[in-house]
Amino acid sequence: MKYAVLGTGTVGRALASKLVSLGHSTWMGSRTADSDAGLAWAADAGALGTLSTFSGAANAADIVLLAVGGQHALAVVEAAADGLQGKVLVDLTNPLDFSQGFPPRLSVCNDDSLGEQIQAAVPGARVVKTLNTLSNTIMVDPGKLSEPSDLLIAGDDAEAKAVVTKMLVEWGHRPPVDLGGIDASRGLEAWLLLWTRLYGALGTGDFNIRIVR
Amino acid sequence: MKYAVLGTGTVGRALASKLVSLGHSTWMGSRTADSDAGLAWAADAGALGTLSTFSGAANAADIVLLAVGGQHALAVVEAAADGLQGKVLVDLTNPLDFSQGFPPRLSVCNDDSLGEQIQAAVPGARVVKTLNTLSNTIMVDPGKLSEPSDLLIAGDDAEAKAVVTKMLVEWGHRPPVDLGGIDASRGLEAWLLLWTRLYGALGTGDFNIRIVR
Repeated sequence: MKYAVLGTGTVGRALASKLVSLGHSTWMGSRTADSDAGLAWAADAGALGTLSTFSGAANAADIVLLAVGGQHALAVVEAAADGLQGKVLVDLTNPLDFSQGFPPRLSVCNDDSLGEQIQAAVPGARVVKTLNTLSNTIMVDPGKLSEPSDLLIAGDDAEAKAVVTKMLVEWGHRPPVDLGGIDASRGLEAWLLLWTRLYGALGTGDFNIRIVR
Repeated sequence: MKYAVLGTGTVGRALASKLVSLGHSTWMGSRTADSDAGLAWAADAGALGTLSTFSGAANAADIVLLAVGGQHALAVVEAAADGLQGKVLVDLTNPLDFSQGFPPRLSVCNDDSLGEQIQAAVPGARVVKTLNTLSNTIMVDPGKLSEPSDLLIAGDDAEAKAVVTKMLVEWGHRPPVDLGGIDASRGLEAWLLLWTRLYGALGTGDFNIRIVR
Protein backbone atom coordinates (compact mmCIF):
# COMPACT_ATOMS: atom_id res chain seq x y z
CA MET A 1 0.00 0.00 0.00
CA LYS A 2 1.13 3.53 -0.79
CA TYR A 3 0.18 6.21 1.70
CA ALA A 4 -0.37 9.95 1.66
CA VAL A 5 -0.46 12.10 4.76
CA LEU A 6 -2.09 15.50 4.26
CA GLY A 7 -0.67 17.97 6.76
CA THR A 8 2.95 18.50 7.85
CA GLY A 9 2.27 19.42 11.48
CA THR A 10 3.26 17.32 14.50
CA VAL A 11 0.53 14.74 13.92
CA GLY A 12 1.17 14.46 10.18
CA ARG A 13 4.92 14.01 10.63
CA ALA A 14 4.42 11.38 13.35
CA LEU A 15 2.08 9.40 11.08
CA ALA A 16 4.28 9.72 7.99
CA SER A 17 7.40 8.67 9.90
CA LYS A 18 5.54 5.65 11.30
CA LEU A 19 4.51 4.59 7.78
CA VAL A 20 8.05 4.95 6.46
CA SER A 21 9.38 2.98 9.44
CA LEU A 22 7.06 0.14 8.42
CA GLY A 23 8.51 0.21 4.89
CA HIS A 24 5.63 1.97 3.11
CA SER A 25 6.19 4.52 0.37
CA THR A 26 4.69 7.69 1.83
CA TRP A 27 3.89 11.08 0.33
CA MET A 28 3.37 14.07 2.60
CA GLY A 29 1.08 16.73 1.20
CA SER A 30 1.31 20.39 2.07
CA ARG A 31 -0.20 23.52 0.57
CA THR A 32 3.00 24.61 -1.15
CA ALA A 33 5.09 21.39 -1.34
CA ASP A 34 8.08 23.30 0.04
CA SER A 35 7.25 23.83 3.72
CA ASP A 36 10.29 23.72 6.00
CA ALA A 37 8.71 21.03 8.17
CA GLY A 38 7.88 18.93 5.13
CA LEU A 39 11.32 19.27 3.56
CA ALA A 40 13.00 18.35 6.84
CA TRP A 41 10.75 15.27 7.12
CA ALA A 42 11.49 14.21 3.54
CA ALA A 43 15.24 14.57 4.09
CA ASP A 44 14.99 12.31 7.17
CA ALA A 45 12.65 9.82 5.53
CA GLY A 46 15.01 8.85 2.73
CA ALA A 47 13.99 6.97 -0.38
CA LEU A 48 10.49 6.05 0.86
CA GLY A 49 9.43 9.63 1.66
CA THR A 50 8.35 12.34 -0.79
CA LEU A 51 7.01 15.84 -0.18
CA SER A 52 4.27 17.00 -2.56
CA THR A 53 1.13 19.14 -2.74
CA PHE A 54 -2.16 17.96 -1.23
CA SER A 55 -3.30 16.89 -4.68
CA GLY A 56 0.03 15.35 -5.67
CA ALA A 57 0.22 13.29 -2.51
CA ALA A 58 -3.39 12.08 -2.79
CA ASN A 59 -2.92 11.13 -6.43
CA ALA A 60 0.17 9.05 -5.58
CA ALA A 61 -1.42 7.02 -2.78
CA ASP A 62 -3.87 4.20 -2.14
CA ILE A 63 -4.71 5.35 1.40
CA VAL A 64 -4.82 9.03 2.37
CA LEU A 65 -4.62 10.24 5.99
CA LEU A 66 -6.09 13.65 6.72
CA ALA A 67 -4.12 15.16 9.60
CA VAL A 68 -4.74 18.90 9.56
CA GLY A 69 -6.42 21.24 12.03
CA GLY A 70 -10.19 20.89 11.84
CA GLN A 71 -10.57 24.47 10.62
CA HIS A 72 -8.58 23.58 7.47
CA ALA A 73 -10.04 20.13 6.80
CA LEU A 74 -12.63 21.01 4.15
CA ALA A 75 -10.28 23.29 2.20
CA VAL A 76 -7.60 20.59 2.17
CA VAL A 77 -9.86 17.79 0.91
CA GLU A 78 -11.21 20.14 -1.75
CA ALA A 79 -7.64 20.94 -2.83
CA ALA A 80 -6.88 17.21 -3.00
CA ALA A 81 -10.25 16.17 -4.46
CA ASP A 82 -8.97 15.02 -7.88
CA GLY A 83 -6.64 12.56 -6.14
CA LEU A 84 -9.21 11.27 -3.66
CA GLN A 85 -11.69 9.61 -6.02
CA GLY A 86 -12.16 5.99 -4.97
CA LYS A 87 -9.46 6.30 -2.29
CA VAL A 88 -9.67 5.38 1.36
CA LEU A 89 -9.56 8.69 3.22
CA VAL A 90 -8.78 8.36 6.93
CA ASP A 91 -10.21 11.37 8.75
CA LEU A 92 -8.33 12.13 11.98
CA THR A 93 -9.63 15.69 12.34
CA ASN A 94 -11.59 17.36 15.11
CA PRO A 95 -13.68 20.53 14.76
CA LEU A 96 -12.02 22.25 17.71
CA ASP A 97 -12.53 25.97 18.21
CA PHE A 98 -9.96 27.47 20.61
CA SER A 99 -11.07 31.06 20.00
CA GLN A 100 -12.46 31.24 23.54
CA GLY A 101 -9.47 29.46 25.11
CA PHE A 102 -9.07 26.03 26.68
CA PRO A 103 -10.99 23.77 26.85
CA PRO A 104 -12.15 24.31 23.27
CA ARG A 105 -15.71 24.19 22.05
CA LEU A 106 -16.72 22.29 18.93
CA SER A 107 -17.41 24.29 15.78
CA VAL A 108 -19.82 21.59 14.58
CA CYS A 109 -21.57 18.97 16.71
CA ASN A 110 -24.72 17.17 17.79
CA ASP A 111 -26.74 17.23 14.51
CA ASP A 112 -23.71 17.19 12.21
CA SER A 113 -19.99 16.40 12.25
CA LEU A 114 -16.82 17.24 10.41
CA GLY A 115 -16.57 13.61 9.28
CA GLU A 116 -19.93 13.91 7.52
CA GLN A 117 -18.99 17.28 6.01
CA ILE A 118 -15.77 15.78 4.62
CA GLN A 119 -17.64 12.81 3.12
CA ALA A 120 -20.11 15.24 1.53
CA ALA A 121 -17.30 17.44 0.18
CA VAL A 122 -15.62 14.47 -1.60
CA PRO A 123 -18.43 11.99 -2.27
CA GLY A 124 -16.09 9.82 -4.37
CA ALA A 125 -13.76 9.20 -1.42
CA ARG A 126 -14.33 6.39 1.07
CA VAL A 127 -14.09 8.30 4.34
CA VAL A 128 -13.22 6.43 7.53
CA LYS A 129 -13.16 8.28 10.85
CA THR A 130 -10.77 6.98 13.48
CA LEU A 131 -7.71 7.91 15.58
CA ASN A 132 -9.13 11.39 16.28
CA THR A 133 -9.35 10.52 19.97
CA LEU A 134 -5.63 9.89 20.57
CA SER A 135 -2.50 11.96 21.03
CA ASN A 136 -0.07 11.47 18.14
CA THR A 137 2.29 9.65 20.52
CA ILE A 138 -0.28 6.95 21.24
CA MET A 139 -1.58 6.88 17.65
CA VAL A 140 1.73 5.52 16.39
CA ASP A 141 2.84 3.65 19.52
CA PRO A 142 -0.11 2.25 21.48
CA GLY A 143 2.30 0.00 23.39
CA LYS A 144 3.39 3.07 25.38
CA LEU A 145 0.21 2.69 27.43
CA SER A 146 0.25 0.35 30.42
CA GLU A 147 -2.56 -1.86 29.07
CA PRO A 148 -4.28 -2.56 25.75
CA SER A 149 -6.93 0.04 24.92
CA ASP A 150 -9.64 0.44 22.31
CA LEU A 151 -10.07 2.43 19.13
CA LEU A 152 -13.37 3.24 17.49
CA ILE A 153 -14.09 3.49 13.77
CA ALA A 154 -16.92 4.86 11.63
CA GLY A 155 -17.62 5.07 7.91
CA ASP A 156 -20.13 4.17 5.23
CA ASP A 157 -17.82 1.76 3.31
CA ALA A 158 -17.25 -1.60 5.04
CA GLU A 159 -14.32 -2.53 2.78
CA ALA A 160 -12.58 0.78 3.52
CA LYS A 161 -13.04 0.18 7.26
CA ALA A 162 -11.44 -3.25 6.83
CA VAL A 163 -8.43 -1.70 5.05
CA VAL A 164 -8.01 0.85 7.84
CA THR A 165 -8.41 -1.83 10.51
CA LYS A 166 -5.52 -3.73 8.92
CA MET A 167 -3.41 -0.55 9.00
CA LEU A 168 -4.22 0.03 12.69
CA VAL A 169 -3.38 -3.54 13.62
CA GLU A 170 -0.04 -3.18 11.80
CA TRP A 171 0.63 -0.17 14.04
CA GLY A 172 0.00 -2.24 17.18
CA HIS A 173 -3.65 -1.38 17.88
CA ARG A 174 -6.39 -3.85 18.65
CA PRO A 175 -9.07 -4.12 15.94
CA PRO A 176 -11.32 -1.08 16.52
CA VAL A 177 -14.96 -1.18 17.60
CA ASP A 178 -17.13 -0.43 14.54
CA LEU A 179 -19.67 2.27 15.38
CA GLY A 180 -21.43 2.16 11.99
CA GLY A 181 -21.77 4.85 9.34
CA ILE A 182 -19.89 8.12 9.00
CA ASP A 183 -22.64 9.88 10.98
CA ALA A 184 -21.19 8.19 14.08
CA SER A 185 -18.48 10.86 13.72
CA ARG A 186 -20.90 12.95 15.81
CA GLY A 187 -20.06 10.70 18.74
CA LEU A 188 -16.35 10.41 17.97
CA GLU A 189 -15.95 14.18 17.74
CA ALA A 190 -18.17 14.94 20.78
CA TRP A 191 -15.78 12.75 22.79
CA LEU A 192 -13.28 15.60 22.45
CA LEU A 193 -15.39 17.66 24.86
CA LEU A 194 -14.65 14.98 27.44
CA TRP A 195 -11.13 14.19 26.20
CA THR A 196 -9.99 17.77 26.77
CA ARG A 197 -11.34 17.67 30.36
CA LEU A 198 -9.51 14.39 30.97
CA TYR A 199 -6.37 15.93 29.47
CA GLY A 200 -6.66 18.70 32.08
CA ALA A 201 -7.37 16.28 34.94
CA LEU A 202 -4.65 13.75 34.05
CA GLY A 203 -2.03 16.32 33.00
CA THR A 204 -1.21 14.39 29.83
CA GLY A 205 -2.75 13.58 26.45
CA ASP A 206 -1.14 10.16 26.45
CA PHE A 207 -4.13 8.11 27.53
CA ASN A 208 -6.92 6.16 25.94
CA ILE A 209 -10.04 4.29 26.94
CA ARG A 210 -10.63 0.59 27.20
CA ILE A 211 -14.21 -0.58 26.76
CA VAL A 212 -15.11 -2.85 29.68
CA ARG A 213 -18.14 -5.12 29.39
CA MET B 1 -26.42 9.65 55.85
CA LYS B 2 -30.06 9.98 54.79
CA TYR B 3 -30.76 9.86 51.09
CA ALA B 4 -33.44 11.12 48.73
CA VAL B 5 -33.92 9.87 45.20
CA LEU B 6 -35.96 12.17 42.98
CA GLY B 7 -37.66 10.13 40.26
CA THR B 8 -39.46 6.78 40.52
CA GLY B 9 -38.46 5.41 37.09
CA THR B 10 -36.20 2.43 36.51
CA VAL B 11 -33.04 4.35 37.42
CA GLY B 12 -34.53 5.95 40.53
CA ARG B 13 -35.86 2.64 41.85
CA ALA B 14 -32.53 0.88 41.24
CA LEU B 15 -30.68 3.61 43.16
CA ALA B 16 -33.18 3.75 46.02
CA SER B 17 -33.17 -0.04 46.42
CA LYS B 18 -29.38 -0.04 46.47
CA LEU B 19 -29.34 2.58 49.22
CA VAL B 20 -31.87 0.64 51.32
CA SER B 21 -29.86 -2.57 50.80
CA LEU B 22 -26.89 -0.75 52.31
CA GLY B 23 -28.96 0.17 55.37
CA HIS B 24 -29.60 3.83 54.57
CA SER B 25 -32.90 5.58 55.26
CA THR B 26 -34.12 6.58 51.82
CA TRP B 27 -36.92 8.80 50.63
CA MET B 28 -38.15 8.55 47.07
CA GLY B 29 -39.61 11.72 45.65
CA SER B 30 -42.28 11.84 42.98
CA ARG B 31 -44.55 14.56 41.68
CA THR B 32 -47.63 13.29 43.48
CA ALA B 33 -46.21 11.08 46.30
CA ASP B 34 -48.66 8.34 45.30
CA SER B 35 -47.31 6.98 42.01
CA ASP B 36 -47.87 3.25 41.57
CA ALA B 37 -44.15 2.64 40.98
CA GLY B 38 -43.24 4.62 44.09
CA LEU B 39 -45.80 2.88 46.31
CA ALA B 40 -44.69 -0.55 45.10
CA TRP B 41 -41.06 0.39 45.84
CA ALA B 42 -41.92 1.66 49.34
CA ALA B 43 -43.85 -1.53 50.12
CA ASP B 44 -40.80 -3.61 49.11
CA ALA B 45 -38.30 -1.36 50.87
CA GLY B 46 -39.77 -1.80 54.35
CA ALA B 47 -38.95 0.42 57.31
CA LEU B 48 -36.05 2.24 55.63
CA GLY B 49 -38.02 3.39 52.58
CA THR B 50 -40.54 6.23 52.37
CA LEU B 51 -42.39 7.70 49.41
CA SER B 52 -42.83 11.47 49.41
CA THR B 53 -43.02 14.49 47.13
CA PHE B 54 -39.91 15.94 45.50
CA SER B 55 -39.79 18.63 48.17
CA GLY B 56 -40.62 16.26 51.04
CA ALA B 57 -37.90 13.82 50.02
CA ALA B 58 -35.27 16.54 49.57
CA ASN B 59 -36.13 18.09 52.94
CA ALA B 60 -35.71 14.73 54.69
CA ALA B 61 -32.28 13.91 53.24
CA ASP B 62 -28.59 14.83 53.49
CA ILE B 63 -27.78 13.68 49.95
CA VAL B 64 -30.25 14.01 47.08
CA LEU B 65 -29.93 12.01 43.85
CA LEU B 66 -31.61 13.48 40.78
CA ALA B 67 -32.68 10.59 38.56
CA VAL B 68 -35.32 11.90 36.18
CA GLY B 69 -35.40 12.30 32.41
CA GLY B 70 -33.32 15.28 31.33
CA GLN B 71 -36.40 17.09 29.99
CA HIS B 72 -37.87 17.15 33.53
CA ALA B 73 -34.69 17.94 35.48
CA LEU B 74 -35.10 21.69 35.92
CA ALA B 75 -38.79 21.49 36.87
CA VAL B 76 -38.00 18.81 39.47
CA VAL B 77 -35.16 20.70 41.15
CA GLU B 78 -37.33 23.82 41.21
CA ALA B 79 -40.14 21.83 42.86
CA ALA B 80 -37.65 20.53 45.45
CA ALA B 81 -35.71 23.79 45.83
CA ASP B 82 -36.73 24.51 49.43
CA GLY B 83 -35.29 21.16 50.50
CA LEU B 84 -32.08 21.44 48.49
CA GLN B 85 -30.44 24.40 50.23
CA GLY B 86 -26.96 23.36 51.40
CA LYS B 87 -27.55 19.76 50.30
CA VAL B 88 -25.34 17.59 48.12
CA LEU B 89 -27.31 17.15 44.88
CA VAL B 90 -26.03 14.31 42.69
CA ASP B 91 -27.02 15.03 39.09
CA LEU B 92 -27.33 11.85 37.03
CA THR B 93 -29.34 13.43 34.22
CA ASN B 94 -28.65 13.72 30.51
CA PRO B 95 -30.23 16.26 28.15
CA LEU B 96 -31.28 13.62 25.63
CA ASP B 97 -33.77 14.54 22.91
CA PHE B 98 -35.30 11.45 21.28
CA SER B 99 -37.80 13.46 19.20
CA GLN B 100 -35.94 12.53 16.03
CA GLY B 101 -35.43 8.87 17.04
CA PHE B 102 -32.34 6.91 18.03
CA PRO B 103 -29.57 7.83 18.52
CA PRO B 104 -30.76 10.94 20.37
CA ARG B 105 -29.37 14.43 19.98
CA LEU B 106 -28.53 16.61 22.97
CA SER B 107 -30.95 19.42 23.83
CA VAL B 108 -28.08 21.42 25.36
CA CYS B 109 -24.37 20.97 24.70
CA ASN B 110 -20.99 22.43 23.77
CA ASP B 111 -21.26 25.92 25.36
CA ASP B 112 -23.58 24.87 28.16
CA SER B 113 -24.80 21.77 30.00
CA LEU B 114 -27.72 20.55 32.02
CA GLY B 115 -25.41 20.21 35.03
CA GLU B 116 -24.66 23.93 34.89
CA GLN B 117 -28.32 24.79 34.36
CA ILE B 118 -29.27 22.75 37.43
CA GLN B 119 -26.59 24.45 39.55
CA ALA B 120 -27.84 27.84 38.35
CA ALA B 121 -31.47 26.90 39.12
CA VAL B 122 -30.64 25.96 42.74
CA PRO B 123 -27.55 28.02 43.62
CA GLY B 124 -27.79 26.93 47.28
CA ALA B 125 -27.37 23.26 46.38
CA ARG B 126 -23.94 21.64 46.00
CA VAL B 127 -24.33 19.97 42.62
CA VAL B 128 -22.10 17.02 41.73
CA LYS B 129 -22.35 15.45 38.27
CA THR B 130 -21.52 11.77 38.02
CA LEU B 131 -22.98 8.35 37.11
CA ASN B 132 -24.75 9.81 34.05
CA THR B 133 -22.57 7.64 31.81
CA LEU B 134 -23.70 4.25 33.13
CA SER B 135 -26.70 1.97 32.76
CA ASN B 136 -28.59 1.64 36.04
CA THR B 137 -27.45 -1.99 36.26
CA ILE B 138 -23.79 -0.99 36.35
CA MET B 139 -24.43 2.10 38.51
CA VAL B 140 -25.48 -0.04 41.44
CA ASP B 141 -23.39 -3.15 40.68
CA PRO B 142 -20.09 -2.27 38.97
CA GLY B 143 -18.80 -5.76 39.80
CA LYS B 144 -21.00 -7.11 36.98
CA LEU B 145 -18.36 -5.88 34.53
CA SER B 146 -15.42 -8.14 33.74
CA GLU B 147 -12.81 -5.64 34.97
CA PRO B 148 -12.66 -2.52 37.15
CA SER B 149 -13.70 0.60 35.24
CA ASP B 150 -13.65 4.34 35.86
CA LEU B 151 -16.19 6.93 36.84
CA LEU B 152 -15.82 10.66 36.32
CA ILE B 153 -17.04 13.43 38.60
CA ALA B 154 -17.51 17.19 38.30
CA GLY B 155 -18.72 19.97 40.58
CA ASP B 156 -17.77 23.29 42.12
CA ASP B 157 -17.75 22.06 45.76
CA ALA B 158 -14.75 19.87 46.68
CA GLU B 159 -16.32 18.67 49.94
CA ALA B 160 -19.50 17.62 48.14
CA LYS B 161 -17.41 15.68 45.62
CA ALA B 162 -15.67 13.92 48.52
CA VAL B 163 -19.04 12.93 50.02
CA VAL B 164 -20.20 11.54 46.69
CA THR B 165 -16.91 9.73 46.16
CA LYS B 166 -17.44 7.96 49.50
CA MET B 167 -20.95 6.95 48.38
CA LEU B 168 -19.62 5.58 45.07
CA VAL B 169 -16.88 3.59 46.79
CA GLU B 170 -19.51 2.13 49.15
CA TRP B 171 -21.36 0.94 46.03
CA GLY B 172 -18.24 -0.84 44.74
CA HIS B 173 -16.85 1.80 42.35
CA ARG B 174 -13.25 2.95 42.23
CA PRO B 175 -12.73 6.60 43.31
CA PRO B 176 -13.79 8.68 40.30
CA VAL B 177 -11.51 10.88 38.22
CA ASP B 178 -12.17 14.52 39.18
CA LEU B 179 -12.71 16.63 36.05
CA GLY B 180 -13.02 19.94 37.92
CA GLY B 181 -15.96 22.34 38.12
CA ILE B 182 -19.57 21.76 37.18
CA ASP B 183 -18.85 23.16 33.69
CA ALA B 184 -17.08 19.85 32.99
CA SER B 185 -20.66 18.52 32.72
CA ARG B 186 -20.31 19.66 29.09
CA GLY B 187 -17.87 16.81 28.58
CA LEU B 188 -19.77 14.28 30.69
CA GLU B 189 -23.01 14.94 28.82
CA ALA B 190 -21.37 15.06 25.36
CA TRP B 191 -20.08 11.56 26.08
CA LEU B 192 -23.68 10.40 25.60
CA LEU B 193 -23.36 11.11 21.86
CA LEU B 194 -20.65 8.44 21.83
CA TRP B 195 -22.25 6.24 24.50
CA THR B 196 -25.41 5.79 22.43
CA ARG B 197 -23.30 4.74 19.40
CA LEU B 198 -21.41 2.24 21.56
CA TYR B 199 -24.74 0.99 22.91
CA GLY B 200 -25.78 0.31 19.31
CA ALA B 201 -22.48 -1.33 18.38
CA LEU B 202 -22.17 -3.50 21.52
CA GLY B 203 -25.87 -4.37 21.76
CA THR B 204 -25.95 -3.59 25.48
CA GLY B 205 -25.80 -0.60 27.80
CA ASP B 206 -23.93 -2.62 30.40
CA PHE B 207 -20.44 -1.35 29.69
CA ASN B 208 -18.12 1.34 30.94
CA ILE B 209 -14.73 2.78 30.13
CA ARG B 210 -11.45 2.26 31.87
CA ILE B 211 -8.93 5.08 31.54
CA VAL B 212 -5.60 3.62 30.40
CA ARG B 213 -2.43 5.67 30.80
